[in-house]
Parts: sequence; C-alpha cells; structure tokens
Amino acid sequence: MSLLVVGSVALDDLETPSGKAENVVGGAATYFAYAASFFTPVRMVAAVGEDFPQEVLDDLAARGVDVAGVEKRPGTTLRWKGRYHEQLNVRDTLHLDLGVFADFQPNIPEYYRDSDYAFLANIDPALQARVLDQLARPKLVGCDTMNHWIQGSRDVLDALLRRVDMLVVNDEEAQMLTGDRNMVKAAAKILDSGPKTVLIKRGEYGVIEFSGNSVFAVPAYPLEEVCDPTGAGDCFAAGVMGELARSGDVSAQGLRRAIVYGSVMGSFVVEDFGPKRLLGLTREMIEQRYQLFVSLTDIPR
Amino acid sequence: MSLLVVGSVALDDLETPSGKAENVVGGAATYFAYAASFFTPVRMVAAVGEDFPQEVLDDLAARGVDVAGVEKRPGTTLRWKGRYHEQLNVRDTLHLDLGVFADFQPNIPEYYRDSDYAFLANIDPALQARVLDQLARPKLVGCDTMNHWIQGSRDVLDALLRRVDMLVVNDEEAQMLTGDRNMVKAAAKILDSGPKTVLIKRGEYGVIEFSGNSVFAVPAYPLEEVCDPTGAGDCFAAGVMGELARSGDVSAQGLRRAIVYGSVMGSFVVEDFGPKRLLGLTREMIEQRYQLFVSLTDIPR
Repeated sequence: MSLLVVGSVALDDLETPSGKAENVVGGAATYFAYAASFFTPVRMVAAVGEDFPQEVLDDLAARGVDVAGVEKRPGTTLRWKGRYHEQLNVRDTLHLDLGVFADFQPNIPEYYRDSDYAFLANIDPALQARVLDQLARPKLVGCDTMNHWIQGSRDVLDALLRRVDMLVVNDEEAQMLTGDRNMVKAAAKILDSGPKTVLIKRGEYGVIEFSGNSVFAVPAYPLEEVCDPTGAGDCFAAGVMGELARSGDVSAQGLRRAIVYGSVMGSFVVEDFGPKRLLGLTREMIEQRYQLFVSLTDIPR
Repeated sequence: MSLLVVGSVALDDLETPSGKAENVVGGAATYFAYAASFFTPVRMVAAVGEDFPQEVLDDLAARGVDVAGVEKRPGTTLRWKGRYHEQLNVRDTLHLDLGVFADFQPNIPEYYRDSDYAFLANIDPALQARVLDQLARPKLVGCDTMNHWIQGSRDVLDALLRRVDMLVVNDEEAQMLTGDRNMVKAAAKILDSGPKTVLIKRGEYGVIEFSGNSVFAVPAYPLEEVCDPTGAGDCFAAGVMGELARSGDVSAQGLRRAIVYGSVMGSFVVEDFGPKRLLGLTREMIEQRYQLFVSLTDIPR
C-alpha cells in the first residue's frame, strides 16, 4: 500500500572515527525513501535547492520512489556538516545552512492524499500537522521529533501527538518528553498522550516497543564496524513503516515483524558512509539479515 | 551437579534514588549463592568477620548452600557504603573497609574439590588461580573480574583467563581488557585469550554472549522501577552457572537457556534493596519471568 514520507533532504559532510565523506546525499526523507523502497512504493515530499543533483532524484524514482512531491526551489539545499565522537551516539554539528529548508512548506500533491501509511520525519510539528490536514484518511501515521521541538514547540507537538498512531523517538527524547528516565514510565506517559505505539531507539543497544500492555525488545545487530551512524534512525523507521505498508498487517505480530525489518535496515545503513550501503542491497540480503536477528535473539522455550 | 562459588561476603550501606538501606548483607558470593540456590546445591567459599550475623549463614544453609567453606575469622566483615546516581550504572564508593577480606585466602574444603562447576567471583586473580589449583577437574569454570585487576594485575589475569571457560564482564571491562570499544572486536580478542565464551553485561540494556561463531543477545527486562542495582551482575552469573549445573547441558542451546535464567535472576534482584527480593522467590516465579523474556524478544519467523 502507499507510503508517504515528509521530511528533509540534505547534502552532508560527515566525519566519523572511520573517516570522512563530503557532499553526501542525506536528510531524513532521503534515507527513509531509499530504505522503504525495498518494501513498498514510496511517495516523497521535500524541498531541494537548485544545487541538488538530479541523478539522485532519478535514482530514487528508478527505485519506486515517487519524487513528484520533491520541490526544486530557488536557493541551496540544506547542508549539514557533522562530526561523530568515538562514542558514536555523540555528534557535533560543525556547520548548518538550512537553505531552502528554512521556509519549507510541505505541499502534498493531490494524488498523494489517499496515502494509507504516512511517516512524518523530524520537522517542525506545525508542518507535520499541516501534512496530516492534507491527508484523506491514513490507516497509520508514524512520527519522529527531536529535542528542539520538544523544548520549543511543546503545545504544537502535544496536539500533533494526539493525531499520530506511532511515535519513534530515542531514549533521550522520550525522557525529555516525559521527565522520566525510566523507559517503562516514559512509554506509559507517551501512550497516554496519544500514540498507540511508541518505539524507543537506543542506538547500539537496539529498540524497544511499547503498545498498550505489550512490550517487545530487539537488540541492535552486533557489527564489527559501525562506519557512519547518520540515517540509522530514519532507516529504522523506514523498515518499520515500509513493512507495515507492504503487508498491511498492523497486528501485534505484524508490528513485531516490521520492527525487526526496521532494525535490519538500521543495521545496514551504518556499515558505510551516507546511504551508500543501501544502494547495493537486495531483498535477499534483507531477508538473510532478518534471519540473523532471529538467531541472535532466539530463546529456547 | 555441584556448583562452587568463591568470592566476597559483605555488609553494605546502600543509597539509591529509591532510598537507603543500611547493614544489608552483600558481597558477590552472597548474591551468587542466594540466586544459584534456586537451581542447584551451592558450595560457598568466603570469609566473614565475627560481626557477621549467623542467621544469614543459617538461612543460606536452609536454601541448600553449603557454608562449610565460609570461614569466620577474627575481625570485621568487609563493609561497603555506596551511593548510586540517577543514572544507575554510575556509583560512588563512600566508604570501604576490607576487614577480614583484606587477607582472604580461599581454602577449598577437601570434599568441595570434585565440584563440576565453579564460579570465581571478582577477587584478586592470583586467588582465583589458587582456587583452580585446588579443584580436581571442573567441567566448566566461570570467572568475573574488574578494572582494578585488569589494570593492576594484568599478567596474572591473562594467565588465569587461559584456564577459564567463561568470562563474565561488563562492557567497560571488556573495553579495558582489549582496548576495543566495539564489542564484536573486544569479544573476539577475549575468545582468543582463553575463554570459550564471553558474556558481556550491558546493565539496563541486557547482555550479549559470544562463543566461537555464535552470538546471542538478551535485552534486560524493562522494569518500572529499579530500586537497587547491587548484585545484579552476580545474580546474572548465578542464574547462568546455576542452570548449567542443574541441567548439565553446556550445548549452545543449554547456554542460551542459562543466559536467560541469568537475566531473570538479575531482573529480580534489582527490584528491592540488597538480596531481599531473592528471599521470597519461588521456582514458579522464576519460570514465569523466563516466559516474559520469551515474549519480550519473540520474533515472528
């Protein structure tokens, strides 16, 4: 079924303990679209500047991503330069130029409005709400956010959360959102605030899902080298939403399967700089890694 | 089968964000013996001072712990006063008085020497080696250590590691031991140094096992309140070793089952101060929590 994503597209300069990569295509919507395209057709809403390479959009289109919603606007593409510490969950922003992203107003093409699944990547919650206003009747809406909005746009974010089905945040964001360091308590508060499901990302430790009385934890796949963590969270969300849209199965079991596919996509993308690792993936490689997660976590009954 | 443990017995004063508890029985061997006694008879080797309450030893004996190896010596029992931070993996030692533990020399009673399973809790690796010298032919030896010995007694520790089957350390210790922050690389180096299995404890994130080409990860059970983390690692080791000694099954599957029982015991002990939570446990409660771990991690095939 149709999967819509709204979010940033960027050009990144990346420094990690493994090396450097410059002028790499990035942004949450880009990572999401690349990763979700292995599961289902994707509809993408974003803004790029005149400097954005057309061949990237062509490549996305060839992968089943509808880029009609990616507006090319006068000016430059969002540029981010970041440096990761030895401890890869810590990073510094060395340079940020919002470019055309500064006044991004998501306009949903008319024929996108019947999308069954939608993912609101991390942008201003006022814009995320505006996207929802334009959708007919999505079956499931997923949403990301960040510290900036939690602290600076709390009322708008709270109103948005009442309209989304699934929140995807990391543990720090869950704590900031609720004041609880304990993830069981934090999740309970988040579930009280609107979403039926919350997925809490814990970086190298994996992810934990809370939905009503159910809880599901998936460790991260232990990798010998994490080259570049950029986009891991977006690819995780893409695997989850992509598999849900592909299967249409939003049962507890369907959700678990989707979360593992999310973990699979997150584990792949960090193995090289930017989205490079995604470009050479096949469904078979994705299925193989799914089975690695099964054997990683399989408890004898 | 017979399970031997050698380690510290202490009287602790504990401060955690949940409150305070004074004069609580502690020490690695104590936690281990309490937790392992639910699985198999335990033989305990330790030293206590004249101030140590006899009723604790009587209680342990009533639980199937052979305390013939617990020497009562002139002087006072090891005393530790610790304060945990909001982030429970950080703690300060406010007071430490080694008492009779200062010149603890583990003497293994003659009839303990045929023990099939042995756990060397965290003490000087020279003493751990001395224990091994006194054992006939154990089927499986597990071993803990800490930063103090990794930095200060490296040669002795390295020699010991060549004689143990399973090393149980936390992620910081694994990093210190190998120089690798990446746990896959750290584990590979540890497996090269002697042990056939390494269990890396990651606190609130659970545990990961590396053995040859196999890797197994168990998330920690998400608890609404962690009251006191003291003894969690010792109870984890106790569940692992206790189940291995009970079943005699040291196959990959048997080891996985044992690691989950370890996680179960670790998840219980942190729910109250000191070993208090262990005292009221039953086998049925342990089996129920084992099943909670199964459902927590169960991935649809």
